[in-house]
Amino acid sequence: MLPTPAHQLWRPWMRRALQLAALGRGRTSPNPMVGAVVLDAAGQLVGEGFHGQAGGPHAEVGALNQAGDRARGGTLVVTLEPCCHHGRTPPCSEAVIAAGLQQVVIAMADPNPQVAGGGIAQLQAAGIAVIQGVGEAEARSLNRAFLHRLATGRPRAILKWAMGADGRTALSNGASQWISGPEARRWVHQLRSQCDAVIVGGGTVRADNPLLTSRGLRSPEPLRVVLSRSLDLPTSAQLWDTALAPTLVAHGPQADPAARARLGQKGREQTNLEGLELASCTPKALLEALADRGCNQVLWECGPELAANALKEGCVQEIAAVIAPKLMGGLPARTPLGELGFEHMDQVPGWQALAPVCLGADLLWRLEQP
Amino acid sequence: MLPTPAHQLWRPWMRRALQLAALGRGRTSPNPMVGAVVLDAAGQLVGEGFHGQAGGPHAEVGALNQAGDRARGGTLVVTLEPCCHHGRTPPCSEAVIAAGLQQVVIAMADPNPQVAGGGIAQLQAAGIAVIQGVGEAEARSLNRAFLHRLATGRPRAILKWAMGADGRTALSNGASQWISGPEARRWVHQLRSQCDAVIVGGGTVRADNPLLTSRGLRSPEPLRVVLSRSLDLPTSAQLWDTALAPTLVAHGPQADPAARARLGQKGREQTNLEGLELASCTPKALLEALADRGCNQVLWECGPELAANALKEGCVQEIAAVIAPKLMGGLPARTPLGELGFEHMDQVPGWQALAPVCLGADLLWRLEQP
Repeated sequence: MLPTPAHQLWRPWMRRALQLAALGRGRTSPNPMVGAVVLDAAGQLVGEGFHGQAGGPHAEVGALNQAGDRARGGTLVVTLEPCCHHGRTPPCSEAVIAAGLQQVVIAMADPNPQVAGGGIAQLQAAGIAVIQGVGEAEARSLNRAFLHRLATGRPRAILKWAMGADGRTALSNGASQWISGPEARRWVHQLRSQCDAVIVGGGTVRADNPLLTSRGLRSPEPLRVVLSRSLDLPTSAQLWDTALAPTLVAHGPQADPAARARLGQKGREQTNLEGLELASCTPKALLEALADRGCNQVLWECGPELAANALKEGCVQEIAAVIAPKLMGGLPARTPLGELGFEHMDQVPGWQALAPVCLGADLLWRLEQP
Repeated sequence: MLPTPAHQLWRPWMRRALQLAALGRGRTSPNPMVGAVVLDAAGQLVGEGFHGQAGGPHAEVGALNQAGDRARGGTLVVTLEPCCHHGRTPPCSEAVIAAGLQQVVIAMADPNPQVAGGGIAQLQAAGIAVIQGVGEAEARSLNRAFLHRLATGRPRAILKWAMGADGRTALSNGASQWISGPEARRWVHQLRSQCDAVIVGGGTVRADNPLLTSRGLRSPEPLRVVLSRSLDLPTSAQLWDTALAPTLVAHGPQADPAARARLGQKGREQTNLEGLELASCTPKALLEALADRGCNQVLWECGPELAANALKEGCVQEIAAVIAPKLMGGLPARTPLGELGFEHMDQVPGWQALAPVCLGADLLWRLEQP
């Protein structure tokens, strides 16, 4: 949709609504982030709201409640088409109509098949003017994880690693703590706080015994997931202590029955520790299961083989490479990725790089899927 | 030396002299870069000069010639102590005294043991006021390669590589053309133009058949050097065509006599193709030989084993890592560095990183020796 003068007029208020929406980052799944502002008939700001968590009030309702009677004859500016169906909360379209608004400005239609234009149609049928597409690109970017899940049936996935400037993720003997400095490690906690699940393979549990939490930056903590074909996992591991965060152990149908029984035993002792049998022990099957559990965005923090498999199955939309100014060397030393099967350099796609960011002495380079 | 008000006064002119000095970059070895300005008695600029190549006029002489009689009673601002010995050109201290200057402002004393304060003493003995240490840090930084050679007996060395974001410098089958884009490759030509020699190992000649020139950005081209223990080198290679640039093949005393004879034969057919026997086939022995040939700065563009050996022998002062936004993968795929022998992460030194620079889609990250 081409911008019109009306679009230009509403962009500043939509920008505010997008800022409000972003306040819910990492907490709204399986829902999108949504923000809303209400202006009175004279164009003065009288209400603001955002969607803070699934099951909680929608952004429009919060903003309209704040505005009260002052919404009458006014304008609602909202980042997503108001819903028109009964979910965990009543339809917002009804609340909008009841508020007596003159017009509604919307960034993007709701791609949820239960809405998909139905909310807009209800508003228009009630005589409310609807302006669509204001700040649509920004709104799509903000909710790209949610949109990715709706389009593919899998969460958007980020693959993160920390390496030396020579591309090693461990020394020859496996030592890897710490490659990056405290600023970069803190940033990884922030990244985790924006994800619904953090995934490793069995090898990472055995080698690094990671904690995988956001260190309290997200509450609840993201789901910690181990994808293990063999279920050959250590008896004692930080991930088995689920007081801080839940842990899910996913495996294929061929997992060793004895190991499965031990996992079941652990699960009975600990709430929040769960086993999950996948139809196949693949990144794709795991992400489909996580989408069913409402994950919009997940983080791979796994070793080279699982990372390469995730890439080959299209299960990585973004790379977050933390690069330390250290030369680690080591012929058998671990690298970020296993075999990808390229034979010519012109088969290797160029990813879309964001500007590099300095995190203390380290460098963060984010690449988005080509 | 602490800055005085006089230092502050002369800093802008010293900055100009340093700019002039930098015009000689890549062409003055074994000499340092030097720049000079002459101001008349009223403080007006009347002459500028820089050292353009070894054997050519010194910076002071150029600036004084331009100033002529107007130098009388004036000031010479020069980035390095004027020489006081007969080299390929007469001593500059005599020319400075003859010009009737009132004072001389100098950034740093000449560390060359043939000068080392002698030039300053001559000027002071002739009644000329000498102000020392203006812009000394900048002058030392500009000539750090020259200073490194004088201090260590080896040229300053830069190790350059191009890798994917996952730290691979080739695909599993060895394919590596091209990892980086045209802007980054052009930058490598510029980097070569600032070096006196570009060094590879025999493996790189066999695998990549590189040309290793600055593509005309430096004239003459840097010396191309192959360090080969075995002298098991291809019969045909771009490096054997010395019409564009000279090539030196360095080897140890154990090199195969037949291969040595073939190299001698090639050398008789081609001027500019030369064999050199080192006491040992090591990076250190090679750099000492290159320092003897007047190299101030050299560039390693070699494979992982030679690069790791150069690092372990202290023969690398700077890393220039070009990182492409590509995921190359590959378990047997080449990486920048071989074994460095670290066992704990806290043994791995952090290098001093410069701000990353974007070269087209690629990233350039330079690290300086810790």
